[in-house]
Amino acid sequence: MSSTPALAELYAEVQLFYARQMQGLDSGKLEAYADTFTEDAEFSHTPGREPARTRAGILADLEDFHKRFEDDPLRRRHWFNMIDIDPQPDGTIISVCYALVVKIRPGKAPEIAASCVVHDVLTRAGGELLNKSRRVEYDPAL
Amino acid sequence: MSSTPALAELYAEVQLFYARQMQGLDSGKLEAYADTFTEDAEFSHTPGREPARTRAGILADLEDFHKRFEDDPLRRRHWFNMIDIDPQPDGTIISVCYALVVKIRPGKAPEIAASCVVHDVLTRAGGELLNKSRRVEYDPAL
Amino acid sequence: MSSTPALAELYAEVQLFYARQMQGLDSGKLEAYADTFTEDAEFSHTPGREPARTRAGILADLEDFHKRFEDDPLRRRHWFNMIDIDPQPDGTIISVCYALVVKIRPGKAPEIAASCVVHDVLTRAGGELLNKSRRVEYDPAL
Repeated sequence: MSSTPALAELYAEVQLFYARQMQGLDSGKLEAYADTFTEDAEFSHTPGREPARTRAGILADLEDFHKRFEDDPLRRRHWFNMIDIDPQPDGTIISVCYALVVKIRPGKAPEIAASCVVHDVLTRAGGELLNKSRRVEYDPAL
Repeated sequence: MSSTPALAELYAEVQLFYARQMQGLDSGKLEAYADTFTEDAEFSHTPGREPARTRAGILADLEDFHKRFEDDPLRRRHWFNMIDIDPQPDGTIISVCYALVVKIRPGKAPEIAASCVVHDVLTRAGGELLNKSRRVEYDPAL
Repeated sequence: MSSTPALAELYAEVQLFYARQMQGLDSGKLEAYADTFTEDAEFSHTPGREPARTRAGILADLEDFHKRFEDDPLRRRHWFNMIDIDPQPDGTIISVCYALVVKIRPGKAPEIAASCVVHDVLTRAGGELLNKSRRVEYDPAL
């Protein structure tokens, strides 16, 4: 496996990318989150909701979606783990990982609000990873 | 720590191995899961149940064990994390990690069904990691 | 990103450090846990409680804090994930990660007792990572 050192390096890079991306989202930095997508990205995060397209479209969609949390003293934490990456010949990286959405409200125990599988296509621009697409699949999908 | 680069590389490789192994199991690919063990492996996954031995024995045991899920619209997600690895002089790798079994049923919030400590001995065959043994210890073990 | 190989290596090293550190704490090895801090470290783990200072002070504080678990057949598991690291010019590493405290009691399903953000400053001594400081922030912090 001559590709192992490069794959190990990429693996850590993807983990770090997810940590920063989702810590930012959980801090309510919607614009910074939108900036982790390519200009022409597609983002499908909720079943039955039309995917958002382009970075501007993703930001608009997020701002609309997050209105539901405005009067809710809710902290959300997105946990990504069990990441499987598969580098493609064209330089993109297919990444499939598990996600838990943990919700915390004052005076209550944290609850796992959702279990998901995240299907990403990542790409590199200026040395940095970006999401070319993201599709979030909710359990149960049986 | 001259061993750090190699250890870091191995660490990512183990994480990727676990991600693929458990995503496969959670997708119901029992044969693919059995193939992540060596031919002579031993797998002890449930307290009070005799360990399964050999790859064929592990597959048979899994098929028997999974019958209980047949009429149950249940999605299971295995989360491995907090992985401690310890490469041995004989080339095997002792790996001890935490595991959560998340169960999801239609119309219900995900629940943490179990918290475990997974004790693995990993080995390399043809460049790929395989489980030489796996022992799953359920909390509480106090 | 010429720094990527070193960053990837450091990332794996931090993950391994956390795995060993918290597996040790969850096994009740308070002295070993205190030894993962520098002699002059500061550790703030509970809101409204004065931070513990120096390694000896951290150990004394932990022994006091853990008295509450003495008559409680409780197993705690600390999950650290979504780790963001930021190496500093002075050689220290700022690390911010998510943490879940999972509590398990006999005959009950595991429960998520707390969701936290851990703010660490790590440093290197004799090749090994140590906590120069740790501040645990509990959700919700809104």
